[in-house]
Amino acid sequence: MSSTADIIRGVSEGSIRAVARALSMVENGTSNSSDILDELFGLRRGITLGITGPPGAGKSTLVNRMISHYRDEDRSVGVIAVDPSSPFTGGALLGDRIRMQSHASDPGVFIRSMGSRGHLGGLSGATRDASFVLSAAGYNPVIIETVGVGQAEVEVADLADITLLVLVPGLGDDVQSMKAGIMEIGDIIVLNKADNSGIDQLESYVKASLELMPSGLKRPEVIRVSATAGEGLDDLWAAVDRFAASHTEKERISRSAIKTLNEILKENGLLFSEKLLEMEYNGREEAEELILTGTMSPYAIGKNLLKAAEGMFEHNGSK
Amino acid sequence: MSSTADIIRGVSEGSIRAVARALSMVENGTSNSSDILDELFGLRRGITLGITGPPGAGKSTLVNRMISHYRDEDRSVGVIAVDPSSPFTGGALLGDRIRMQSHASDPGVFIRSMGSRGHLGGLSGATRDASFVLSAAGYNPVIIETVGVGQAEVEVADLADITLLVLVPGLGDDVQSMKAGIMEIGDIIVLNKADNSGIDQLESYVKASLELMPSGLKRPEVIRVSATAGEGLDDLWAAVDRFAASHTEKERISRSAIKTLNEILKENGLLFSEKLLEMEYNGREEAEELILTGTMSPYAIGKNLLKAAEGMFEHNGSK
Repeated sequence: MSSTADIIRGVSEGSIRAVARALSMVENGTSNSSDILDELFGLRRGITLGITGPPGAGKSTLVNRMISHYRDEDRSVGVIAVDPSSPFTGGALLGDRIRMQSHASDPGVFIRSMGSRGHLGGLSGATRDASFVLSAAGYNPVIIETVGVGQAEVEVADLADITLLVLVPGLGDDVQSMKAGIMEIGDIIVLNKADNSGIDQLESYVKASLELMPSGLKRPEVIRVSATAGEGLDDLWAAVDRFAASHTEKERISRSAIKTLNEILKENGLLFSEKLLEMEYNGREEAEELILTGTMSPYAIGKNLLKAAEGMFEHNGSK
Repeated sequence: MSSTADIIRGVSEGSIRAVARALSMVENGTSNSSDILDELFGLRRGITLGITGPPGAGKSTLVNRMISHYRDEDRSVGVIAVDPSSPFTGGALLGDRIRMQSHASDPGVFIRSMGSRGHLGGLSGATRDASFVLSAAGYNPVIIETVGVGQAEVEVADLADITLLVLVPGLGDDVQSMKAGIMEIGDIIVLNKADNSGIDQLESYVKASLELMPSGLKRPEVIRVSATAGEGLDDLWAAVDRFAASHTEKERISRSAIKTLNEILKENGLLFSEKLLEMEYNGREEAEELILTGTMSPYAIGKNLLKAAEGMFEHNGSK
């Protein structure tokens, strides 16, 4: 199996080998990856579920529960585990192997790790592309699990149709890495370890924080669960279904399509800027040097780049 | 006074008329605005102070106090009042007239309103450019005051060398428009109306929220003032001076220069993308239509745009 057409057909038929090949090509940005994504884009069907929260919040346990739940409904489940701090991309890391233990032999579950290496559109671009591959292969939902809650995770969470923010009581060190204001990224806030004594305090704090949200925004539902004990999970699945039902499939797919166009325009635009920078100034380093020594201003450099670009457009018969 | 050179000379000499002309040209993005900014960029000297916070927090009163303080030190003060919800840009709005009453006849104070209209780089680009004009004209500090604390305000706050977040107790309706997590944008948090009974509760809440900041980030100082009564202001000015002294002028100017370059590259890049979109698809609307009808994917469109751009680069002898 080597031709682009073979890979596309393989993915659409749900071949695990074809999916793995397509993911590698997409992550590495090989020359035909945009052809693959072009074909697969129209085949995507299901929803993407983002799971984020501080380390130690029990996200992996919850994801395991979620996999079991959707497998019981006879749905195939894709999982993308995103770790912005990891330079590795693709393949199964140790964490995955532990995570997938209970689902290791289940061909209806596909788990993939994403690190920060490669891809023009950064980690969020790579994750977006990978989620389309899994979706086109029939995995539904595609679960995007992130580690931590920094800027990178917020971007990744924004890719999902529904985002779950997982918090736990007695946070101590854990919450040190939780940014204040992160509440806003959750469509549903999951208070995990509901059997812990600090759960009431956490819920008060979360609800007080939600009060501070701008009045125009929709307040997320807050659901208590204990992922380990399996309590409250039915409420959570129902909340996910409610949220999913609040948008039509057409709305969801249109939103993601226009968002993807805008991101690709941005990625292309930055590429053009960098290419022009290389053409006119041998790259960014020389341009920064010129600015920091006071030889040129960023405005003069920007203007030269625009002029060079305009020259090229004129050359090509555009107005 | 009409030539670019005249305007630049006028600004550098602090002519109010030249400054007003330059601001209009920069805001409207006239063809020679980048020439003006290019020349003025190297002349900027002082610091920019961002002031943000929910409506009703008393920002205008505080800005008035701030103007008086720096005027007492014989410094000229520039104020840019940013209102993302206003379609107006330039000139003096009603709010300004009220605001500047006590400084209306003082030629050492220049106040300008900025709305959301025009400028390729959006409101934050327009504000950045305007702040450079005022700085080059010798206003120091340039105060950037924003209304509200949405995404636009965060971007604007990020332009300033020092950002003050102003909060008040008994927030009720006011704080409804304050985003949770906004704390992170303040280098100094000003608790205004310190004579109000709710001030202790507000300070506890603010300090608890700051505890949630990632451990790597510098915690802002929290200062109580009463802008109306004039209390606590000396502490505030001292905190501003301390923060300003924590970075050298070179560090500050380098940071802002590289940031400006990156923003200009982004703005140019988006412009190229849109131009390519026009060249290949008669613009964005047609491209979106093709995507939403399922005729083409965003990836196919992106690929065509890249191919068109590469053709142009080849034509121009670049690799």
